[in-house]
Amino acid sequence: MKYQIKAVHMFRVPEGRDLIGYINKYAAKEDIRTAVVSGIGTLQNPVIGYFMEEKGAYKKIELPGMYEVTSIEGNISLKDNRPFTHIHINLGDAVGKILGGHLIRGNVYIAEIVIIELSGTPLERIPYGSLSLWKTEST
Amino acid sequence: MKYQIKAVHMFRVPEGRDLIGYINKYAAKEDIRTAVVSGIGTLQNPVIGYFMEEKGAYKKIELPGMYEVTSIEGNISLKDNRPFTHIHINLGDAVGKILGGHLIRGNVYIAEIVIIELSGTPLERIPYGSLSLWKTEST
Amino acid sequence: MKYQIKAVHMFRVPEGRDLIGYINKYAAKEDIRTAVVSGIGTLQNPVIGYFMEEKGAYKKIELPGMYEVTSIEGNISLKDNRPFTHIHINLGDAVGKILGGHLIRGNVYIAEIVIIELSGTPLERIPYGSLSLWKTEST
Repeated sequence: MKYQIKAVHMFRVPEGRDLIGYINKYAAKEDIRTAVVSGIGTLQNPVIGYFMEEKGAYKKIELPGMYEVTSIEGNISLKDNRPFTHIHINLGDAVGKILGGHLIRGNVYIAEIVIIELSGTPLERIPYGSLSLWKTEST
Repeated sequence: MKYQIKAVHMFRVPEGRDLIGYINKYAAKEDIRTAVVSGIGTLQNPVIGYFMEEKGAYKKIELPGMYEVTSIEGNISLKDNRPFTHIHINLGDAVGKILGGHLIRGNVYIAEIVIIELSGTPLERIPYGSLSLWKTEST
Repeated sequence: MKYQIKAVHMFRVPEGRDLIGYINKYAAKEDIRTAVVSGIGTLQNPVIGYFMEEKGAYKKIELPGMYEVTSIEGNISLKDNRPFTHIHINLGDAVGKILGGHLIRGNVYIAEIVIIELSGTPLERIPYGSLSLWKTEST
């Protein structure tokens, strides 16, 4: 799908908020339907997921403590007609070792977020087994 | 080099395709010459490279199994007049440990890709020893 | 804050330059006040930081040797009326293990940098304890 850029949103998430919950709420308020999400910061007690293909489910990995967020990459698209934020994250501990995966939740200490909002036909997720995915295109 | 944005492409790569091969083919079909590439997903049996300066070659690191792709960063520019995709990747295993480097190949399980296509004088790679690099600018 | 895109800058940093120092100088020369920064490359002897909340200071982690830069994510905003580059980084060693955090310094071997320059009211950092942060917005 091809899009044009409608606006770029840059903001800091207040301390203590769940990162994905905050972005979902921001997207709903701003009526963002399709977007690219990135950012950096510091996160407390994140929970990440690793997809187990054979079980069709995410294994949850709990990471107690404070982590540098070395990258946030992801997107916003529509799921059940509401903006849905899908983020993968890299997290650095006190010795610089990086852990990461599919972000399930995490409390913001600092988060500098960029949302590149797109205009065009909204991208939608549809169910594929236990996942919800975009349709593939023929290439 | 300064560019304007021509279009933003967002798509999911079909299961089983080589990630870089698919993006190169997509870029050729869409006549994308200069672009920024990012994305997330899940990749099987990726092979990454670490550049050994003293040998002027990449050491290949084979990673059997399924990995969360926690970040894709890279670009498309022209090499020998054809779109050439250069990607670095971070990959999370089942305990959330991250491995990564220069992406050589990897089979897509899921990949949500963003290509920010640029307009302006195409960026070109030229040979520098064993590498092909963009010209540097004076700053 | 909402922005429009003014231009996208793509360039390679010359070998031997400090990555952040080079981007700060480039931003000052090009009068870039608010921007999104990303990129990939290879870096020598990087020094990264992990923020120790209880001390209000960064712990420095020195990483001797050559690393693949698997991701650069960050931004440019104004601090004391001058462009200030804030970058988090992921770095891969010779076996593909990733280390990362807040980038303090590092000498470029290769760096392919993308700066998405924004137009609109410049984003500014103001002191919060020992940090300088953007104002939060109410959401």
